[in-house]
Amino acid sequence: MPHTAITPIDAIIDLQHAALSQRLRHLIDHKTKPLGALGRLESLALQLGLILGSERPELQQPQMVVFAADHGLAARGVSAYPSDVTWQMVENFLAGGAAVSVLARQHGLALTVVDAGVAKDIPPRAGLQIRKVAPGTADCSRGPAMSAAQCDQALAAGADVVRGLPGNVLLLGEMGIGNTSSAALLMAQLTGLPLSQCVGRGTGLDDAGLQRKLAVLQAALSLHADAREPLAALAALGGFEIAMMCGAVLEAAAQRRVIVVDGFIASSAVLVAQALQPLVLQRCVFAHQSDESGHGRMLDRMGAQGAQPLLQLGLRLGEGSGAALAWPLLVSACAILRDMASFSSAGVSEAS
Amino acid sequence: MPHTAITPIDAIIDLQHAALSQRLRHLIDHKTKPLGALGRLESLALQLGLILGSERPELQQPQMVVFAADHGLAARGVSAYPSDVTWQMVENFLAGGAAVSVLARQHGLALTVVDAGVAKDIPPRAGLQIRKVAPGTADCSRGPAMSAAQCDQALAAGADVVRGLPGNVLLLGEMGIGNTSSAALLMAQLTGLPLSQCVGRGTGLDDAGLQRKLAVLQAALSLHADAREPLAALAALGGFEIAMMCGAVLEAAAQRRVIVVDGFIASSAVLVAQALQPLVLQRCVFAHQSDESGHGRMLDRMGAQGAQPLLQLGLRLGEGSGAALAWPLLVSACAILRDMASFSSAGVSEAS
Repeated sequence: MPHTAITPIDAIIDLQHAALSQRLRHLIDHKTKPLGALGRLESLALQLGLILGSERPELQQPQMVVFAADHGLAARGVSAYPSDVTWQMVENFLAGGAAVSVLARQHGLALTVVDAGVAKDIPPRAGLQIRKVAPGTADCSRGPAMSAAQCDQALAAGADVVRGLPGNVLLLGEMGIGNTSSAALLMAQLTGLPLSQCVGRGTGLDDAGLQRKLAVLQAALSLHADAREPLAALAALGGFEIAMMCGAVLEAAAQRRVIVVDGFIASSAVLVAQALQPLVLQRCVFAHQSDESGHGRMLDRMGAQGAQPLLQLGLRLGEGSGAALAWPLLVSACAILRDMASFSSAGVSEAS
Repeated sequence: MPHTAITPIDAIIDLQHAALSQRLRHLIDHKTKPLGALGRLESLALQLGLILGSERPELQQPQMVVFAADHGLAARGVSAYPSDVTWQMVENFLAGGAAVSVLARQHGLALTVVDAGVAKDIPPRAGLQIRKVAPGTADCSRGPAMSAAQCDQALAAGADVVRGLPGNVLLLGEMGIGNTSSAALLMAQLTGLPLSQCVGRGTGLDDAGLQRKLAVLQAALSLHADAREPLAALAALGGFEIAMMCGAVLEAAAQRRVIVVDGFIASSAVLVAQALQPLVLQRCVFAHQSDESGHGRMLDRMGAQGAQPLLQLGLRLGEGSGAALAWPLLVSACAILRDMASFSSAGVSEAS
């Protein structure tokens, strides 16, 4: 097992701090509304209060970070799009024309794009961090996607990106042609679910394409049947953007940042991180349930209330677009906790 | 049938304008994302473009209007809260401490509270419009909730409120102890569904309370079995806030404003408006599916794609809180349409 940048488990404070949890529940229950009437927003407010350790949580300088990398497996025809789309979309993110660019602007989210391992060299510029481990992973249907040292490097880089950014919220996005394949393989390997329940159409494969993808992934999974330990699975089947997101999640969780997880691929990075450090899940807010068919099952497997996604909008774009769309709900949950009157402060009669 | 302020049906332009619809679909389909990858946001963008008649729709000066009134039926114990909570919550809205106040501030929504028929007199002040038809409806389990003239007055007042407000978006909220009862009665009467499928726990009735509510409403429904025509049903079973919202919906639809509908009670006003003018539904965006048990069925009955709610957060507060929470998704849909790059403008390869 490689040396990694993972914070030891005892550095993570257990958030189920009984006293704060009780104070938060009391506050929420005495706001001027019927008990439980704000539904999922109430459990979100509780979670944010616990993560930030405050009855008046404030989300500060939210950072949207989009990790991009290429996948050797893409050469096997597992995506409807060519690998060139990875760097083209990085350019689009930086030029402000992609969905996540538009949504980050709308919500005042700082946007950082990380080249975790894009095949083409991207010219340096503001908003881009070049942390390229290699120009794309190797084809994991023929050997490991990356070496243990590369996996370690990616994890460390992800943690380092987080350490270099201000604020107390990390929103996770990604780009990488072929990365629903990596995410599905990691899911199958770490959950033990049949591959067919983990694989979906990605960017829009037709039935024949889906069958081809499934066959390629089945071969990859068989090849790496022994790579069951989380980091071994990550190295064998993962992508540089997924490994870097995993490192970012571990670091952000250790720092008690709120982690807003986008869709299927970002969730697969959390799945690996959770296997290493179960408590990371307490810091994760799952923005939405993706239309990618395995995502609902992946969230179920992660369990815990926090894994109940906020939005169900049939999204399957990635990039962090779902995280950005869910963002105002987090702001609302904090505002409810901070600014809403109680029955007694507003002089409103309680239920009989 | 009373003389009403309803705009004649031919004043509503059919929004299924084929050419604009086709241009909007083309625009959405050529944005830099897989086809359909933004899910429900894409159909929302299409709808907003059609309502506002533009390929670059802009939402201007959004108006959150909360209609408040009391219900004679509340004296029969159909709610967990006393009627006094209606005026107390109006005070809370105006003081800025209610959920809708907090959320409207967060999103820059202008907030107007309308006294449509609150039992107590509310002192005039900024942000309050006094349009009181009467100090609460009559008990509809003993006679009609309001006279035809009062119903007409409420419809006209709702339309007048909209005419007096700027902008091209109306967000609909309400407050009125007992008003889930009115909404359930209108739903049963206009859809023909069994009352048990229309009635829910409202602000939080226990099992015994729910049975009592059901029995009271069953008696009311039997009493007004003949009031099947939409306006007759509205007068017999409705509330002043519901009738005023109905008038507001009809006027806003005629003006081609975007109408953001909150939960069960606001939707019941749309149900009546739709029965009068089917095309109003094209202007309505349903913010969320409420936890109030009849709401999903009510939306199904209204049909049409637009009735697919944006959020499923287990909300059951009313006030317009769900409409405010969904608001940023409308802003996002317009931003995607206006600001996102196309494959050709961004130089991104399309799917093979």
